[in-house]
Amino acid sequence: MSNQEIGFGDRCDPVPLARPALTADEAAALAAGFKAVADPTRLRLLSLIAAHAGGEVCVCDLTSGFDLSGPTISHHLKVLREAGLITGDRRGTWIYYRIVPSALATLAQVLAPAADLEVSA
Amino acid sequence: MSNQEIGFGDRCDPVPLARPALTADEAAALAAGFKAVADPTRLRLLSLIAAHAGGEVCVCDLTSGFDLSGPTISHHLKVLREAGLITGDRRGTWIYYRIVPSALATLAQVLAPAADLEVSA
Repeated sequence: MSNQEIGFGDRCDPVPLARPALTADEAAALAAGFKAVADPTRLRLLSLIAAHAGGEVCVCDLTSGFDLSGPTISHHLKVLREAGLITGDRRGTWIYYRIVPSALATLAQVLAPAADLEVSA
Repeated sequence: MSNQEIGFGDRCDPVPLARPALTADEAAALAAGFKAVADPTRLRLLSLIAAHAGGEVCVCDLTSGFDLSGPTISHHLKVLREAGLITGDRRGTWIYYRIVPSALATLAQVLAPAADLEVSA
């Protein structure tokens, strides 16, 4: 898209907002969460953790499904943990991971109101 | 998390999957969509477009809410268009943007099943 396409000339008639848009601060916080899931390996890890019965999974069950080194999986799990999307709990030899449903719901809800327009349109 | 934390020794008892996890191909496609929204400015643009009554907004109404140059806004709108999350339609002087509800719903649904665990847990 060129600068010309944007049309910085006369203003058109403003259309009212049907609901509040995100503030800059809200968007910054949410973008950090989306950055954490914006990676194929992390999406698959998140999906695998959520897909396990009981919502908890041992790290040993996560590593086997990937053609990646342990440290690489470890790095991706750390990014998800630091973003607050999963928690890790060591019990004996293993670390057990759970998703943080409220954190994922927050991200989903940002996209869902827009998706709802399809129904009401 | 260290390599040791991952525990590559003996395997624990595997836990069954309650539902299918994402495949590598699915995760790659979805990650591209999440990358497009993993930016504060793009999240705000998406939110502003979705928040406008009728789900459509003139580009002139988007530029005024940001302390960014026109070309920068233009770049972010292009990323959202290329990711298939919005469409742009030129009518006369202006381009009118709409969100693509199905594309946003697809992203929301990836996060939503995990979020649902909070209700069922």
